[in-house]
Amino acid sequence: MAPHDALSEFDLIKHYFVRQRPGRATLGIGDDCALMTPAAGKQIAISSDMLVEDRHFFAGADARMLGHKSLAVNLSDLAAMGARPVAFTLALALPQAERAWLAGFAEGLFALADAFDCELIGGDTTKGPLNICITVFGELAPGQALRRSAAVAGDDIWVSGTLGDARLALAGYRMEQELSPADLATAGARMHTPTPRVTLGCALAEAGLAHAAIDISDGLVGDLGHILKASRVGATLDVDALPAGPVLARQDAQLRRRYTAAGGDDYELCFTAPASSRDAIAALAISCGTPATRVGRIETHAGLRLVDAAGQPLDLQLSSFDHFSD
Amino acid sequence: MAPHDALSEFDLIKHYFVRQRPGRATLGIGDDCALMTPAAGKQIAISSDMLVEDRHFFAGADARMLGHKSLAVNLSDLAAMGARPVAFTLALALPQAERAWLAGFAEGLFALADAFDCELIGGDTTKGPLNICITVFGELAPGQALRRSAAVAGDDIWVSGTLGDARLALAGYRMEQELSPADLATAGARMHTPTPRVTLGCALAEAGLAHAAIDISDGLVGDLGHILKASRVGATLDVDALPAGPVLARQDAQLRRRYTAAGGDDYELCFTAPASSRDAIAALAISCGTPATRVGRIETHAGLRLVDAAGQPLDLQLSSFDHFSD
Repeated sequence: MAPHDALSEFDLIKHYFVRQRPGRATLGIGDDCALMTPAAGKQIAISSDMLVEDRHFFAGADARMLGHKSLAVNLSDLAAMGARPVAFTLALALPQAERAWLAGFAEGLFALADAFDCELIGGDTTKGPLNICITVFGELAPGQALRRSAAVAGDDIWVSGTLGDARLALAGYRMEQELSPADLATAGARMHTPTPRVTLGCALAEAGLAHAAIDISDGLVGDLGHILKASRVGATLDVDALPAGPVLARQDAQLRRRYTAAGGDDYELCFTAPASSRDAIAALAISCGTPATRVGRIETHAGLRLVDAAGQPLDLQLSSFDHFSD
Repeated sequence: MAPHDALSEFDLIKHYFVRQRPGRATLGIGDDCALMTPAAGKQIAISSDMLVEDRHFFAGADARMLGHKSLAVNLSDLAAMGARPVAFTLALALPQAERAWLAGFAEGLFALADAFDCELIGGDTTKGPLNICITVFGELAPGQALRRSAAVAGDDIWVSGTLGDARLALAGYRMEQELSPADLATAGARMHTPTPRVTLGCALAEAGLAHAAIDISDGLVGDLGHILKASRVGATLDVDALPAGPVLARQDAQLRRRYTAAGGDDYELCFTAPASSRDAIAALAISCGTPATRVGRIETHAGLRLVDAAGQPLDLQLSSFDHFSD
């Protein structure tokens, strides 16, 4: 960036992140704190995610996609709780203030924020290795939260949308799998611009149809494991019933099983619900425009048992992603 | 760290950040979101700060001090709004999971959090260049917030505590100023472990004594400038009335003027209040154990005029800190 074109921290915030549209915040960007007036009788759900270059996204990743994904992974946490998005803060460390990057990032960020009526109310900017930290706020009625600890033996296990295409894209970028440019673009879109399942998550919570939920970020098997542990139950998962993404669906069965069961970066919901909710959930999924598929059953017996379409045990040698062992 | 001693992301959170003490959150660490139940009729104040190595602190900085400072700078924003701390989230990027560092960081963090009854309710951890992002939540009654835009011509300008020792410590570390080891330690403590002025800020807001407030993080002249701009007023600042820290107070007058007026990293409050509040503020400052000093006057005429003890104009050639031009 030419020196005469230098952006100060305040100009940067004003130009790219302060918007001239009425929001729900009592006080937005520009003071020591933002102020929110909570809706009477509602609880506030809060989640923070930090995205780091070379770990959560490639160096040089498209700024627009990055703006989308940074907020999407946070909205996905609200969806998994059944909370309606209200607002978020953005803390951003940037190696330099580049106008084109900032414009793209803001465009991706606000397109998604506007789709879910979620207002940017504050944050921080600083120079430093690229790091994007968003804290998101949602609201929900007391008692409606879809908690990890609420699964009950006998519950069906459901997943939203499709799984595995984001992991397949990663394999494609790493040249571990050969994919056509068109397939890589399709699968890559699942990795770069995931759709947070806010509509379905909120509808499930508000209708009282589901028990436990989690969003699938580190792979279904690992994330379902958190539900099992918190709920002190076990489960059988029908791996061949897992809905594969359109590109992964055309790959061989072993790859399909591994990537749907433990791919990571899916940002779909995994939730449990009593069998009595089946028809209502199927109808709700249609009205939300988000497919939902039954893929297993919660059981009293501890542990997670993976089976194939014939009900035979599968050993997929899976491991969940861990930031400090990987 | 030896491989047999490896900490997973979940172990790290469980061991260092999940605590066995009852908190105010409805649901704390361990689900997709934390849940808070807002106090009836209260507003929520929210602030985020991101601290980056080599910018906000030296590489190799003491972990305990870093834990303290990361939360202190956020609590300072609540103080400047007059909001009582309730809870915070912590997002942490670490090059590696080192037990000694984590233990020290958690100790410094929780000692300050406990002092202000502020509960860690969630967050994120990831591998990456050291980055600490805290989002803090406070509560206050509607109409009580000390906003930057509320200064009125005729208001006194006040500052809490003392100014400039943090900047003097920086000059000492950089060998720009010669300081004895004892002086460097005293001044350094102001830089590393600032005291957020929560008690005074909340008391001022609750008593309705002050108009506008801001916390002094980038230097008084720059931060007061934000109040002037937001309030569309000007001011005269008596630079020789600025209360210098104990080490700075023993330096020459020019240095004292520059570092009290624009030192940065003070984390004191600058606030404005009508002359009718003078006695009540003086009494409140004593009851809060935080000195407060009158240092100038808000005026109709735009701009900030710096004067000496005799009322003569001073030109200190100051510049405020900017993250993207520095």
